[in-house]
Amino acid sequence: MIRVLIWNEYQHEKSSEEVRRIYPNGIHGALAEILKGEDVSVRTATLDDPGCGITKEVLEDTDVLLWWGHMAHHKVPDEVAYLVRDAVLSGMGAIFLHSAHHSKPFRYLMGTSCNLTWRESQDSELLWVIEPSHPITRGIDRCFRLPAEETYGEPFVIPTPDKLLLIGNYSGGEVFRSGCLYERGNGRIFYFQPGHESFPTYYVPEVQTILRNAVRYVAPTYREMTACPHVRKITDSEPYVID
Amino acid sequence: MIRVLIWNEYQHEKSSEEVRRIYPNGIHGALAEILKGEDVSVRTATLDDPGCGITKEVLEDTDVLLWWGHMAHHKVPDEVAYLVRDAVLSGMGAIFLHSAHHSKPFRYLMGTSCNLTWRESQDSELLWVIEPSHPITRGIDRCFRLPAEETYGEPFVIPTPDKLLLIGNYSGGEVFRSGCLYERGNGRIFYFQPGHESFPTYYVPEVQTILRNAVRYVAPTYREMTACPHVRKITDSEPYVID
Amino acid sequence: MIRVLIWNEYQHEKSSEEVRRIYPNGIHGALAEILKGEDVSVRTATLDDPGCGITKEVLEDTDVLLWWGHMAHHKVPDEVAYLVRDAVLSGMGAIFLHSAHHSKPFRYLMGTSCNLTWRESQDSELLWVIEPSHPITRGIDRCFRLPAEETYGEPFVIPTPDKLLLIGNYSGGEVFRSGCLYERGNGRIFYFQPGHESFPTYYVPEVQTILRNAVRYVAPTYREMTACPHVRKITDSEPYVID
Amino acid sequence: MIRVLIWNEYQHEKSSEEVRRIYPNGIHGALAEILKGEDVSVRTATLDDPGCGITKEVLEDTDVLLWWGHMAHHKVPDEVAYLVRDAVLSGMGAIFLHSAHHSKPFRYLMGTSCNLTWRESQDSELLWVIEPSHPITRGIDRCFRLPAEETYGEPFVIPTPDKLLLIGNYSGGEVFRSGCLYERGNGRIFYFQPGHESFPTYYVPEVQTILRNAVRYVAPTYREMTACPHVRKITDSEPYVID
Repeated sequence: MIRVLIWNEYQHEKSSEEVRRIYPNGIHGALAEILKGEDVSVRTATLDDPGCGITKEVLEDTDVLLWWGHMAHHKVPDEVAYLVRDAVLSGMGAIFLHSAHHSKPFRYLMGTSCNLTWRESQDSELLWVIEPSHPITRGIDRCFRLPAEETYGEPFVIPTPDKLLLIGNYSGGEVFRSGCLYERGNGRIFYFQPGHESFPTYYVPEVQTILRNAVRYVAPTYREMTACPHVRKITDSEPYVID
Repeated sequence: MIRVLIWNEYQHEKSSEEVRRIYPNGIHGALAEILKGEDVSVRTATLDDPGCGITKEVLEDTDVLLWWGHMAHHKVPDEVAYLVRDAVLSGMGAIFLHSAHHSKPFRYLMGTSCNLTWRESQDSELLWVIEPSHPITRGIDRCFRLPAEETYGEPFVIPTPDKLLLIGNYSGGEVFRSGCLYERGNGRIFYFQPGHESFPTYYVPEVQTILRNAVRYVAPTYREMTACPHVRKITDSEPYVID
Repeated sequence: MIRVLIWNEYQHEKSSEEVRRIYPNGIHGALAEILKGEDVSVRTATLDDPGCGITKEVLEDTDVLLWWGHMAHHKVPDEVAYLVRDAVLSGMGAIFLHSAHHSKPFRYLMGTSCNLTWRESQDSELLWVIEPSHPITRGIDRCFRLPAEETYGEPFVIPTPDKLLLIGNYSGGEVFRSGCLYERGNGRIFYFQPGHESFPTYYVPEVQTILRNAVRYVAPTYREMTACPHVRKITDSEPYVID
Repeated sequence: MIRVLIWNEYQHEKSSEEVRRIYPNGIHGALAEILKGEDVSVRTATLDDPGCGITKEVLEDTDVLLWWGHMAHHKVPDEVAYLVRDAVLSGMGAIFLHSAHHSKPFRYLMGTSCNLTWRESQDSELLWVIEPSHPITRGIDRCFRLPAEETYGEPFVIPTPDKLLLIGNYSGGEVFRSGCLYERGNGRIFYFQPGHESFPTYYVPEVQTILRNAVRYVAPTYREMTACPHVRKITDSEPYVID
């Protein structure tokens, strides 16, 4: 059983009728419907929950965290962001969605500004598979189309991804590294660009397939915070000892 | 002219006669002697300087920052660490020395714990060149020896280096990724393991050669903070416009 | 069921009594004993088999190929090496052992000379885990010792590994990137340094664990040769078409 | 002085009046005009020259080789391709242009099929800068347009580039990793997608800027074939000895 926690800022849905019409149960509600299944249990948390709904214990009971945020990144306390960062380093999988490129946990894990070029648009987007054999792109054809999506463009200030899985192409002309995979500490991180709140992106079948694949791919098989041990000298007669 | 700023915590030299005997003018003083030259100007700053001697203006006048710290990482304010991080992302070169693996600027740029395994020892260390054609290892033979050095061991919790230049081998049996190169934003970062305060490591000729090479390699040829611009649609008749 | 094919040059065992005493059924025989199990079927092939025992059909029925060779790399026809290379690119997993760093299939997949520094020795070797959370190093402590092993040293002329899993440390002073992981085309490649014919290395429990782990890790979940298709333009009304 | 050798297949220009009109002195002639300068000397060679105009001695006198080929890759003897590969591994820079993705030297250096998806088209192409601070993209704005170019698409079966510098976006919808940088052995390799023979691509100013930048970036500062030396044990009293 993979234990998924979906964290959603949940502000646009409350303040905008347009967004609420698309995601009446919130983006987290829509994602929960997509992901829950026989081998996946889902919980949700939002910004307005006490402590953002994130504690050390909650994260220890989480295999994969999804994070959607946009207008209120700064309202997430640093302490919460550090908890998420450290959980990832200890092995928890993490999927950062769309404007979560600027969320604190993602920026703190990347170490860069995660700035990008952007444009409000009615662009359609074609997403192209770069690595057809990767488990996250399994079941996806060479490309798929999003009828409308906010335009993101390069440069995207991230470390070179360990693996670049998808490149997006907007009808207005921009390109973007839309699916980026990282390993940090003992955890796996997937950044996935689609999901502007004003468009029904998470109802697109290929987006759902990729999300389901990604949850399975980043789920940990090992969970431990690699420490900074003081050790004693290794000898032929005794094993390597951590004090 | 490459403008170097050497930042040294400068605590051990004040509190320990043993260290002071090795570095009577501080580790920063020894590094300054090594690096200054016809094409390199050197300034220094330490923890006890007001604001750690680091301001936005100081960093804008710096091409390459060297950082040595150990026992007082926590005394460096976050604001100072963020200034350093952002200067690197805008193109400033940075060289982190020895126990600066745990310094705030290095950890914030890496995004990981930068934990490692360690042992106080009288080990000698052999440092092996992995990339003989790299500008940083130019002039170094296949390996060189440090008569004594604190033992660092794997796992070292860092992102996979963009380029691994040196591996250290300690007489007690450990190995360590001792020379690691990263590109983050527009800046280049070199982590270089040698330099425990209790040993005269910075007087070893090969260590000095690598430091001189590294300063030249990480010095920027471009300096700009890549922003997050809102743009207007590209058209055939007009260029790409940043609002 | 993972279908493993073990290819062994099988020359030393015939010409040297010393080697035959260690591996009476050949190195391939020893490896077969280690790997076969409820979910793994094993076949073997050797240099003296007609066509090296390698055909397109044999490789299509193979999920993971292990390769051990040393003194007779040049006797493997280019055609056989190309079959192996192409099977890997189509998704077959491959594990290259010890002196197979100079085998034709490995060199053709890497694109480099795969030269290294070496020394016949009675060195012992300590192998250190760099990535403790990787499935290939699962079950291995921080390090393990081989009582005797031929000494390999840097520089090892390979592309920067996608993931460096193990570094070896020889009692004579050398270090070596002993466990290197690559993705090429749709296939995964693991280079694993231990296994000199004169020493009973493949009887060491940790070596066996790593081999069993590696077979499972590089086994394909997808198998297809990515072609070079001529396509028709994508339109809104019809899908992307390969002619 | 950087010594450039431009190798052009030089077949289309002879057989097609359309191509000859665009490149009356051959593609190599056009490239020579672009690259030659005070600090760059240029020679050219073509398929119809004896031995393709490539010998060990010619390559030893070459700092940077540019390669354009398309319809006659198979007519380049393997021996010539191996000479090029080995010169790169010893430090020579190499720039592979457009359909040279399928040339023997490029494929042998990459180790993969280098297959891609393609379409004859009248597409225009927008090329986007991914790494604005890289010396190869210096002087290029965020993007530039080619009025017409053959369409290349993903998947492009190459090893993950050490650095991805440019992504191309075709008006027909495809994307492509159009500027890819590799280090192999002691040499640097740049693959650059623009340059279909039917379009005057090499007259576009930004293409010329990138070519001039790339020649300087891949030019070697070190030149040596890293060998496979048999060594003697390192001791405290004597240096590391190659037999």
